[in-house]
Amino acid sequence: MTAPEKLPHRSEPLANSRRVYIPGTLYPEIRVPMREITLAPTQKVDGASEANEPVRVYDCSGAWGDPVFCGDITQGLPRPREAWIRARADVEEYEGRAVAPIDNGYLSAQHAEYASQSEKNRLVEFPGRRSKPLRAAKGHPVTQMWYARRGIITPEMEYIAIRENQGLERLRDQLSEKASRRSMLHQHPGTSGRADAPGVFAKFPQAMPKYITPEFVRDEVARGRAIIPGNINHPEVEPMIIGRNFLVKINANIGNSAVASSIEEEVEKMRWSTKWGADTVMDLSTGKNIHATREWILRNSPVPIGTVPIYQALEKVNGRAEDLTWEIFRDTLIEQCEQGVDYFTIHAGVLLRFIPMTAGRATGIVSRGGSILAKWCLAHHKENFLYTHWDDICDILALYDVAFSIGDGLRPGSIADANDEAQFGELQTQGELTRRAWDRGVQVINEGPGHVPMHMIHENMMAQLEWCHEAPFYTLGPLVTDIAPGYDHITSAIGAAMIGWYGTAMLCYVTPKEHLGLPNKKDVKDGVITYKLAAHAADLAKGHPGAQYRDNALSKARFEFRWDDQFALSLDSETALAFHDETLPQEGAKTAHFCSMCGPHFCSMKISDDVRKFAAEQGLDETAALAKGMEEKAREFVEKGAEVYTKE
Amino acid sequence: MTAPEKLPHRSEPLANSRRVYIPGTLYPEIRVPMREITLAPTQKVDGASEANEPVRVYDCSGAWGDPVFCGDITQGLPRPREAWIRARADVEEYEGRAVAPIDNGYLSAQHAEYASQSEKNRLVEFPGRRSKPLRAAKGHPVTQMWYARRGIITPEMEYIAIRENQGLERLRDQLSEKASRRSMLHQHPGTSGRADAPGVFAKFPQAMPKYITPEFVRDEVARGRAIIPGNINHPEVEPMIIGRNFLVKINANIGNSAVASSIEEEVEKMRWSTKWGADTVMDLSTGKNIHATREWILRNSPVPIGTVPIYQALEKVNGRAEDLTWEIFRDTLIEQCEQGVDYFTIHAGVLLRFIPMTAGRATGIVSRGGSILAKWCLAHHKENFLYTHWDDICDILALYDVAFSIGDGLRPGSIADANDEAQFGELQTQGELTRRAWDRGVQVINEGPGHVPMHMIHENMMAQLEWCHEAPFYTLGPLVTDIAPGYDHITSAIGAAMIGWYGTAMLCYVTPKEHLGLPNKKDVKDGVITYKLAAHAADLAKGHPGAQYRDNALSKARFEFRWDDQFALSLDSETALAFHDETLPQEGAKTAHFCSMCGPHFCSMKISDDVRKFAAEQGLDETAALAKGMEEKAREFVEKGAEVYTKE
Repeated sequence: MTAPEKLPHRSEPLANSRRVYIPGTLYPEIRVPMREITLAPTQKVDGASEANEPVRVYDCSGAWGDPVFCGDITQGLPRPREAWIRARADVEEYEGRAVAPIDNGYLSAQHAEYASQSEKNRLVEFPGRRSKPLRAAKGHPVTQMWYARRGIITPEMEYIAIRENQGLERLRDQLSEKASRRSMLHQHPGTSGRADAPGVFAKFPQAMPKYITPEFVRDEVARGRAIIPGNINHPEVEPMIIGRNFLVKINANIGNSAVASSIEEEVEKMRWSTKWGADTVMDLSTGKNIHATREWILRNSPVPIGTVPIYQALEKVNGRAEDLTWEIFRDTLIEQCEQGVDYFTIHAGVLLRFIPMTAGRATGIVSRGGSILAKWCLAHHKENFLYTHWDDICDILALYDVAFSIGDGLRPGSIADANDEAQFGELQTQGELTRRAWDRGVQVINEGPGHVPMHMIHENMMAQLEWCHEAPFYTLGPLVTDIAPGYDHITSAIGAAMIGWYGTAMLCYVTPKEHLGLPNKKDVKDGVITYKLAAHAADLAKGHPGAQYRDNALSKARFEFRWDDQFALSLDSETALAFHDETLPQEGAKTAHFCSMCGPHFCSMKISDDVRKFAAEQGLDETAALAKGMEEKAREFVEKGAEVYTKE
Repeated sequence: MTAPEKLPHRSEPLANSRRVYIPGTLYPEIRVPMREITLAPTQKVDGASEANEPVRVYDCSGAWGDPVFCGDITQGLPRPREAWIRARADVEEYEGRAVAPIDNGYLSAQHAEYASQSEKNRLVEFPGRRSKPLRAAKGHPVTQMWYARRGIITPEMEYIAIRENQGLERLRDQLSEKASRRSMLHQHPGTSGRADAPGVFAKFPQAMPKYITPEFVRDEVARGRAIIPGNINHPEVEPMIIGRNFLVKINANIGNSAVASSIEEEVEKMRWSTKWGADTVMDLSTGKNIHATREWILRNSPVPIGTVPIYQALEKVNGRAEDLTWEIFRDTLIEQCEQGVDYFTIHAGVLLRFIPMTAGRATGIVSRGGSILAKWCLAHHKENFLYTHWDDICDILALYDVAFSIGDGLRPGSIADANDEAQFGELQTQGELTRRAWDRGVQVINEGPGHVPMHMIHENMMAQLEWCHEAPFYTLGPLVTDIAPGYDHITSAIGAAMIGWYGTAMLCYVTPKEHLGLPNKKDVKDGVITYKLAAHAADLAKGHPGAQYRDNALSKARFEFRWDDQFALSLDSETALAFHDETLPQEGAKTAHFCSMCGPHFCSMKISDDVRKFAAEQGLDETAALAKGMEEKAREFVEKGAEVYTKE
């Protein structure tokens, strides 16, 4: 790899934004970061101006997103969780496993040195502080689930409660006012009176409170309906939660492969993806230097890091799946637990009896992990060793609070294979494994597909909730058609938004390069922004309190021609600005009361202003119309309408 | 404008594709164009090779997409419908309205000449053949609806039946086999037994046959559930249908504006968008030279062209909405009917009493047409003249078979305003106007929103079906969140795919520049491909016969590492190829049995091949597993499963 940047890092803040921190109440030392977007005042038609409240938004970028932070990637991030973990007095430092050349894919130290002669393969160890690992020391799991079940609200839980509310405490009253207006509109005569497509939440009703409290966080974690991924050896993490009664989260995959890319690129992709909103990052590296790459990523990551340990185990046996053993896998798990990985994808649901069910498929087994295990099972004609060693694995993960992301190795790789018996057989097994992990105090999420046409997505979600006891679902898309390679961030965002609405807690992003090649920086950003918008669309549809606040602020800015505010409130302010300037580059166009679509002589939004004036003259002023007029008008409308519309 | 290209046109065919024509049976002179994609044979593991049938796909590009066609845009396209229209012997040629300088936005011929001194504004008339206009001559409408109601199957109807079947006649048996396999899987134990999210089609069941016949086309048009847009003065059109029991269609908007772009660019955008799959094109021009631009577009367009006549009428009164009159509007309608416009957006549902309902909205009236009418109504304090003259308008359109696209001038411009009483009030009025148009034999589609969060989309669709008597719905997206300007092709494709599934017949595309600027060529393509994939996802979810055929072919190619076939079957083969080559540019990588994601040493798809071999050795060969094994295995699975999974 080329030399990592040595200069201290200072980030350029996003447009009109500043970093703010909100303190805790139970734990005053907590500082929850948010991005606060400052807005220009509204210029009223009468010349008066009216202030617009700044908007606070969830921020995944960690210290890297704080302009006053002065760090560099060779030193890693500060460790906000370290004191909290130590204060629980239930962990111990220990020597830990020595890093071996094989961890980076080399047979010996000599091999590693030899390979390092090529710039591309050079092994560069993370030079910053390397602590001894921690593990549970008091004979009980040190998982957030274990504390939650005992009624303990950890600092992580309060942190999350503050974070999920997105600084909307100040706005609670306004929000409930908006909400009641909305529900009135839903009772419009002639409609069903409820907005949801019928039956969406019939079996598993939503239980999202208007306001997230630390106690609610604790309760959801205790029930297993949400997880807080955070290895005690990853104190750099800023706590976050994955569960269907919280904001829908997104994951970005990074990782070098046998074909391309360097450590530095991967660290930069991690920072880049969290800058734009990735809530977790999975390191799917498969080539050389896996251990070293992961160390660099972990020490610099403010978000939880997931991995697929079987990928590294496979490198250790030179890619021969049949040579995998429980011992090699176990050793790899411990290696990664000690480094600080926060969740592991483990394909323990790929059972021997499910494998022949894929023979008649259009696209067989497309999950890499699933294929590895299938190959192992067939070679040995034995049950999947991850399944037979499940309890052992649970006991390891409980020592570090690593969460399971139970893999879906038999997920469909095409529309033709969606919701088939191989997929659903594995899903039922995921449910069994979930129960067993919970019994040992380990947190669990379940991975899901893949490729599913729209009409089968709801069925898939309901099956997961039922069979996996409401453990959080974590899906890859799903893609709703196979025919658009190059646009699979979009085919999958359609499925992702829908399944997020139905109850999926985290959406694994898909980039435009899916099925075609390795994503570059632009692809990573395209994937992240596309998934942020899908997740937000799901939050809106679920009625997450406060989700609509940002939409309203942006739409108000748009309506009032506050162009800079519209850009600043966008998920990607840089692209919004650049697109605007392609047509109207002049600075004056950003304050002008028109846009390129309708030109300076006519604009629909300008006319709407006249309508308001007219309505105001008619005594129907805006607030009055809302407060009392509308109901009456609706009645009048139906009465009049009854004559006109029922003639047929 | 700069001089249009004079060189005869020859198109480069898309990858591995050729143009084929399918003849009619009732009308043997019919030649329905399709793109036929040739596929490489499958290389079996035993060394044998097995042919893959070519795949035929719907083709919107007209003669421009036929490599043997030698034409140029100054001469326009051939006129396949001309003989059919004449053969009905119910139309007459007449002198028609003389084109006036005002039609192009000039007060006089002198003004036009003066303006032409600037290259940008130069008025260049279409130089090709200009025929006298046709109109109905026998005292009855010459609309496809009128013929359909009388039991007449027109050549247009047979053409459409062939086109909608996408050349799948040969494959009917295979398709029904696939379909029965799918339905078995849906009966997987433990699931609901039906794939659709509950209640989606409860009130308005789908009525899509396995195979589209000319008689089915006729019947749907007669009922008003589908339209065939095709002005008798646009004989260049290749017939197509818009209705919810057919393939979901997409529209691309083009048009110059007061701010930018030339005639040549607009013609090229039309050809470009139809090359990638636009089923209709709307010309939304608003600046100078509107009439001339439209003539160029119509004479060169193989797809139906829609317009918003009030835009041109507004130019004729110098942008002052209050100066609009019925006479000016009527004259503009006739002008455009004679030119050959196929459908008109007319905002007759913006009634005076609905206007104050928008005063309390977050974003007022955002439709340009809606704003114009609102301004007129407020200025005169009179009912919308389009509403009061509705019957007169119907009588004009019936003379030329121009279809209505009843505008939604009060559509919501933000999530906050979705499904409110202004929107739904107008929608009910659209229903009344639909009935009245049908009574006069005029074909109708209804325009819809806009901005609607996911959970309110179903409600909107059901309201339209009910109030508008199942007339086809034609929506702009809807966008499912407001916070992603720069990505609104995606926020809207989510809503578009869903509403397409629920029953919308045509989706109006949104480009990445929506809300920000005017789309360039890349934006137009991004919008078209994004909407093609959304429409196809809806076809899959609706269970359109044959929709899944292309997905299956592409997934099979992917599974078998037939990279070139995978690209050729993609909606955008050029981008798929380019993305692949970014990571693996070597020619060998396109025949290699691996991809950049997993590298040469390991590949999940390769392992799946081993599974098949294993399953085959076990006597569970692929077809046997499908034909008899699966049911038995499912039973066995439940029996075994019952022990394992019901312990909790």
